[in-house]
Amino acid sequence: MPEVIFSVDQSKSMRDQDVPGHNRWHPDIPNVAMVRPGDEFRVECREWTDAQILNNDSANDVRDVDLKRAHMLSGPIGVEGAEPGDLLVVDILDLGPVPQKVGDAPGEGWGYTGVFAKANGGGFLTDYFPDAYKAIWEFHGQVATTRHLPGVRFTGITHPGLFGTAPSAELLERWNRREQALIDTDPDRIPPLGLTPDPDQALAGQASGSDADRICQEGARTVPARENGGNHDIKNFTRGSRVFYPVHVKDAKLSGGDLHFSQGDGEITFCGAIEMGGFIDFHVDLIKGGMEKYGVTTNPVFMPGNVEPRYSEFMSFIGISVDHDTDTNYYLDATVAYRRACLNAVEYLKRFGYTGEQAYLLLGAAPIEGRISGIVDIPNACCSLYLPTSIFDFDVRPTSEGPKSADRGQCAVTT
Amino acid sequence: MPEVIFSVDQSKSMRDQDVPGHNRWHPDIPNVAMVRPGDEFRVECREWTDAQILNNDSANDVRDVDLKRAHMLSGPIGVEGAEPGDLLVVDILDLGPVPQKVGDAPGEGWGYTGVFAKANGGGFLTDYFPDAYKAIWEFHGQVATTRHLPGVRFTGITHPGLFGTAPSAELLERWNRREQALIDTDPDRIPPLGLTPDPDQALAGQASGSDADRICQEGARTVPARENGGNHDIKNFTRGSRVFYPVHVKDAKLSGGDLHFSQGDGEITFCGAIEMGGFIDFHVDLIKGGMEKYGVTTNPVFMPGNVEPRYSEFMSFIGISVDHDTDTNYYLDATVAYRRACLNAVEYLKRFGYTGEQAYLLLGAAPIEGRISGIVDIPNACCSLYLPTSIFDFDVRPTSEGPKSADRGQCAVTT
Amino acid sequence: MPEVIFSVDQSKSMRDQDVPGHNRWHPDIPNVAMVRPGDEFRVECREWTDAQILNNDSANDVRDVDLKRAHMLSGPIGVEGAEPGDLLVVDILDLGPVPQKVGDAPGEGWGYTGVFAKANGGGFLTDYFPDAYKAIWEFHGQVATTRHLPGVRFTGITHPGLFGTAPSAELLERWNRREQALIDTDPDRIPPLGLTPDPDQALAGQASGSDADRICQEGARTVPARENGGNHDIKNFTRGSRVFYPVHVKDAKLSGGDLHFSQGDGEITFCGAIEMGGFIDFHVDLIKGGMEKYGVTTNPVFMPGNVEPRYSEFMSFIGISVDHDTDTNYYLDATVAYRRACLNAVEYLKRFGYTGEQAYLLLGAAPIEGRISGIVDIPNACCSLYLPTSIFDFDVRPTSEGPKSADRGQCAVTT
Amino acid sequence: MPEVIFSVDQSKSMRDQDVPGHNRWHPDIPNVAMVRPGDEFRVECREWTDAQILNNDSANDVRDVDLKRAHMLSGPIGVEGAEPGDLLVVDILDLGPVPQKVGDAPGEGWGYTGVFAKANGGGFLTDYFPDAYKAIWEFHGQVATTRHLPGVRFTGITHPGLFGTAPSAELLERWNRREQALIDTDPDRIPPLGLTPDPDQALAGQASGSDADRICQEGARTVPARENGGNHDIKNFTRGSRVFYPVHVKDAKLSGGDLHFSQGDGEITFCGAIEMGGFIDFHVDLIKGGMEKYGVTTNPVFMPGNVEPRYSEFMSFIGISVDHDTDTNYYLDATVAYRRACLNAVEYLKRFGYTGEQAYLLLGAAPIEGRISGIVDIPNACCSLYLPTSIFDFDVRPTSEGPKSADRGQCAVTT
Repeated sequence: MPEVIFSVDQSKSMRDQDVPGHNRWHPDIPNVAMVRPGDEFRVECREWTDAQILNNDSANDVRDVDLKRAHMLSGPIGVEGAEPGDLLVVDILDLGPVPQKVGDAPGEGWGYTGVFAKANGGGFLTDYFPDAYKAIWEFHGQVATTRHLPGVRFTGITHPGLFGTAPSAELLERWNRREQALIDTDPDRIPPLGLTPDPDQALAGQASGSDADRICQEGARTVPARENGGNHDIKNFTRGSRVFYPVHVKDAKLSGGDLHFSQGDGEITFCGAIEMGGFIDFHVDLIKGGMEKYGVTTNPVFMPGNVEPRYSEFMSFIGISVDHDTDTNYYLDATVAYRRACLNAVEYLKRFGYTGEQAYLLLGAAPIEGRISGIVDIPNACCSLYLPTSIFDFDVRPTSEGPKSADRGQCAVTT
Repeated sequence: MPEVIFSVDQSKSMRDQDVPGHNRWHPDIPNVAMVRPGDEFRVECREWTDAQILNNDSANDVRDVDLKRAHMLSGPIGVEGAEPGDLLVVDILDLGPVPQKVGDAPGEGWGYTGVFAKANGGGFLTDYFPDAYKAIWEFHGQVATTRHLPGVRFTGITHPGLFGTAPSAELLERWNRREQALIDTDPDRIPPLGLTPDPDQALAGQASGSDADRICQEGARTVPARENGGNHDIKNFTRGSRVFYPVHVKDAKLSGGDLHFSQGDGEITFCGAIEMGGFIDFHVDLIKGGMEKYGVTTNPVFMPGNVEPRYSEFMSFIGISVDHDTDTNYYLDATVAYRRACLNAVEYLKRFGYTGEQAYLLLGAAPIEGRISGIVDIPNACCSLYLPTSIFDFDVRPTSEGPKSADRGQCAVTT
Repeated sequence: MPEVIFSVDQSKSMRDQDVPGHNRWHPDIPNVAMVRPGDEFRVECREWTDAQILNNDSANDVRDVDLKRAHMLSGPIGVEGAEPGDLLVVDILDLGPVPQKVGDAPGEGWGYTGVFAKANGGGFLTDYFPDAYKAIWEFHGQVATTRHLPGVRFTGITHPGLFGTAPSAELLERWNRREQALIDTDPDRIPPLGLTPDPDQALAGQASGSDADRICQEGARTVPARENGGNHDIKNFTRGSRVFYPVHVKDAKLSGGDLHFSQGDGEITFCGAIEMGGFIDFHVDLIKGGMEKYGVTTNPVFMPGNVEPRYSEFMSFIGISVDHDTDTNYYLDATVAYRRACLNAVEYLKRFGYTGEQAYLLLGAAPIEGRISGIVDIPNACCSLYLPTSIFDFDVRPTSEGPKSADRGQCAVTT
Repeated sequence: MPEVIFSVDQSKSMRDQDVPGHNRWHPDIPNVAMVRPGDEFRVECREWTDAQILNNDSANDVRDVDLKRAHMLSGPIGVEGAEPGDLLVVDILDLGPVPQKVGDAPGEGWGYTGVFAKANGGGFLTDYFPDAYKAIWEFHGQVATTRHLPGVRFTGITHPGLFGTAPSAELLERWNRREQALIDTDPDRIPPLGLTPDPDQALAGQASGSDADRICQEGARTVPARENGGNHDIKNFTRGSRVFYPVHVKDAKLSGGDLHFSQGDGEITFCGAIEMGGFIDFHVDLIKGGMEKYGVTTNPVFMPGNVEPRYSEFMSFIGISVDHDTDTNYYLDATVAYRRACLNAVEYLKRFGYTGEQAYLLLGAAPIEGRISGIVDIPNACCSLYLPTSIFDFDVRPTSEGPKSADRGQCAVTT
């Protein structure tokens, strides 16, 4: 097993760890450790909300979560010799929940999927599901089940939701400026269009004093993916994957966390993955000058691993960029199209006895694929969603007899 | 081999066939044949432009194509007993180019991929590639190669771009209304936001006289996917797939065409697939009242087949909903995110010696996957594009030595 | 479509074709055509027994088949420049049943699987199933079903059972000598240990006069695989495969046939594949001196294609090299071990209502995998057999309730 | 994480553990723990030789290994309610090397593959490789590399080589009798045809006194697979697999060990897997009366998991049941055929610069597939061996230029 270079005590907040991590992006957060190209090492991670969510049957904790504490990241890890313009090669050797431990923190034998309330975060279908919901998943090796979605059992594509290098000061400034410009187009929107730097609940790692204050004032929020990687939520960053991150600062400063036991493409409930703390084992290397050599300027490139769970039969749903409720046509809008595909899948699953919110939670967490199928056939984008049929213990395919509906319980709701 | 119920002479326009097809959607186009649930049958198809594109090294034909003639569809085929509210079960048993024939029409041993000019159709990257380009592909069993993209060879996921049932009169009216409303928001846009009914070049099958005139006046254009199916361009409708189409009119009236030898998710060059005429073998069945039973109201559902070509290594590209050229942030816009992923892939491939337009053509035609990875991490949607590495006869993976660039020729251009 | 260089009229015996093929291996059978490295071409094939088997519900034809007429091969095709010591590169571009034809010959819309009687051919389980049985399969695109095995439906891995190059005179002599030596150890065995040259029913292609007589006297029987390739019955030689055949004579002299719509590993019923006539499209090339370069001396090497049907769930059976009926232990005998795995699978399937002979036919024809799992753990070899669960329209997995047995009819039997 | 019900201190022999396991099969070895149907639990395991092999560059330890100490098994674990005639359902939830530990015992960050000397164990190609050889593999997440086979890197299919239930006294007696009968046919053979009970080095778990003596006298050796499961060495028993073991005694008495980080079909070098100690997590259940219900009498049945590493390109080798060195023909002998396929693969790999013994070690350890392709085409069985091409960091496919040979070092040899 590789050496642990960032360790976490899961009974404590990230803020109270011996070596705390951080929850904002900033070039001046001090490195917690240095590694060399060729090194293998382990990083332990907190669940992204810093364990605000509990293993129970109420969604009140999801409704009331403090999003300013997110995402709690482990790092930054400096890589010797890394300079701006390089590509940092990161192999994901292994990852998983907290080893050999059953406990209260997400990742200690269990994880959760949450639908966030429209008033506090929202999600992809928030106009249809404005309230908070939750499902608690139990882990059985690589398999997850939940009392909140009986009849479902699947192998997770375990992956980190969020890893990235530190932005340069200049890049950070660009982020903050362009996101503020977007927010300014509708500053009172709920949920908001974006999140600006906010020192409340900010954590600057081992920085202290005025440095820490400045980092917390300036640091970019961790929610979106950006030029440094960040919160990609790409389910295919699983064991065996290789990611090539652009390097924007000396030492690259790799940080990350937000581990997922599983997730469907889109992570549609916002907190749609099965969220957990745990560990991740890395191997790192450098391609000197790789950004220019390979034309990688704005986003990482990557190579998926070869151990994703294998499914061969899917029930697939299509959406186009039309709001059928209002008969409104959008121009080649893949977001609308994928939302309609999700809504179509929800409607279908309801015919088998699930509540809409159960179906919504399932589509966030299960290994579904979301594809941009057609993006040029004016005016309608066409997206498709592939749901493996074998994750159900009943036959979910259409037959001439019609669906077998059953009482399938309910997820955790708010009180 | 199943009986041919719609036959095509590939040396003639669809208009001049003994039994012509149609190129507009309308409930009143007369059936060309009746089949029964349980039947298997073959339908022959013209290439979607009615063979306006030639097997040569000039893209002038793509630049000058008359889009009003598209898409030339075979049908409608009536299904006995089908009534509005049913689901029409369509199994794609087999499909392919024109059998046992080498000739001048696309599908007779060859096919093409086109980048349409911004002034005449455009495409997903039209602001970056405003001119017309073309690649001619030769077929070798299930494999395609092209003199216009040396170094590339892949197995196609052959599929129909467009199949669907007839709309009801009411549904047709809704389409035309909602699309006109969209067009009205920017009526002079080039390329246009949508296409309205246009009798010029319209073909109404075996309708004649005032019926034909009315159909051509009212008939919806065939470009987008809609509630009847239509131009999905879903590459996964390949051999062995089963599609469940909503039935909107008596007899269902199944029509289709626009066969593709291969296509990448998104069909990004607009005519991004490898376009061809050919044949498709169907088995049909009915689920009576299936729309209500399964909650299928707005789009077909489907089950992909199990013989898609298998790749295990991918070079993957990420895009987020930021226009990095202008540092403009878009709110969870998957269309922008996928466009950036495509642009990142183009830039990468240029480092190996391809021209940008070659890379663009390749991404349209090769079996790439386009996924909506993250759609909730405000403000940035995150899309990813998976390019199989084994379609190249050189190593396309990043290495510390940097890419091996070579002279890789050029695609067909305009004169 | 590539040019047909060997054509077959399926209404006539191979013997009566304009250009007949052959059913013995001999270096002096004249070439029927010459091709060049780089060429693509089509070869039409008779079903291996020359269409002695009929589409009906009696297995009498299987019982009474004249095996001396087998295998009817198309060829030899000469490859310009090929010399002994080269490797002949053969790409299988495409293959399938007789195109656009429904008729009386196997391959014209249908095929069959036969269990041969112990007294006339036998099979892998002939001591357990000494009589003749048959199943007639109908083709639906790449899918096969049969009235003789209700509840089963699968995608075939279509492939040629038999292709190879001509042996040299010296190699032919070695074959005949070593096989005679084996037969001599038990010359009266039924079924026999091997088949010696036999001019009865022999066909020597376009050879005539004394040449033909000599070929028929000396020519090796086509049943086994040998150093020239031959009757491999490797199900993975499907579309997209590339085979590297040793070249033993000038022009290589490629011949073949025995097309299979599908087959399980082992082809256990002897005529276990779904047998058919049809076509196969090849591309050929040469690696000069390839046998020495790559150390390929005794058998071809190959690379499977990437479009085999994809299954993800299997019911698997194990066998070890023990005859449990007599409690006799064999030493690391994979043949015994695989036979026990097959018998275990048969026994299991009987619990669901199939007869033993139906189960036996199924294991010959369906895309099962047969693996040598352990071959060193003295004294027991261990083989395993993987049966895809999704080929059944009922649940074939073990449950606490036990199997759901049903009346599943019967295959064709003898009268 | 599930509770550990059998723990191992990897610094001590199995004999010296607080609760020792056993290395013979016998119904009277006392249970070390009881579990209930539905339970999940962890079992820790010693490497099969009890850690006689060291992480160094000499194969002397392999040459001199004491095979009477093998296999060191963890267990027996009693399952409440299990009775003869039931099927014990065993889900492999997870398994792996010793967690969070680098050390001297196999499994502590490393494993090994051994070729056993003909005079001490032998292997599948022992007539060709009579001496002892060894390769030490380092673990990187799910990936293995070795200094003894440079240029190779692959994802292991981690699995237990050996698990099973206890035999009844009657079954044990049958084993010993039938294996003795086999040995008696050639009692002086080296390597032997089988292994008889031998109290030397035998370990009877927690039995003591005369019970222990009797168990050691009567207990069956653990090398072969038998009716209780046992040393299957089926590489596909990986994460997510479900095995249905026959129950022969009250409580079922599940025991096992011999964990493998990876293995090729056949485990051809005898100790061909990458051998390690480690852990395995199980879920168990019962199908009451399942043996009769499902006709499972002589061997377990199983369902493989869905996370095996995915490869899509293979270099494949064929063997037939002919000893080409002596031109001797064997009758449908799959063992001979697979041996020839292995030898053909070895010869091929030597052309790229590996020594024969390196190639032999590789074929034992890498995720190759070994298939029984044709087993009825008299007189030649035909087996095929599939070697994934992507495990090499050079191009291993045949080309017209011939193979690129290089100095690829050597494995550990004896002194």
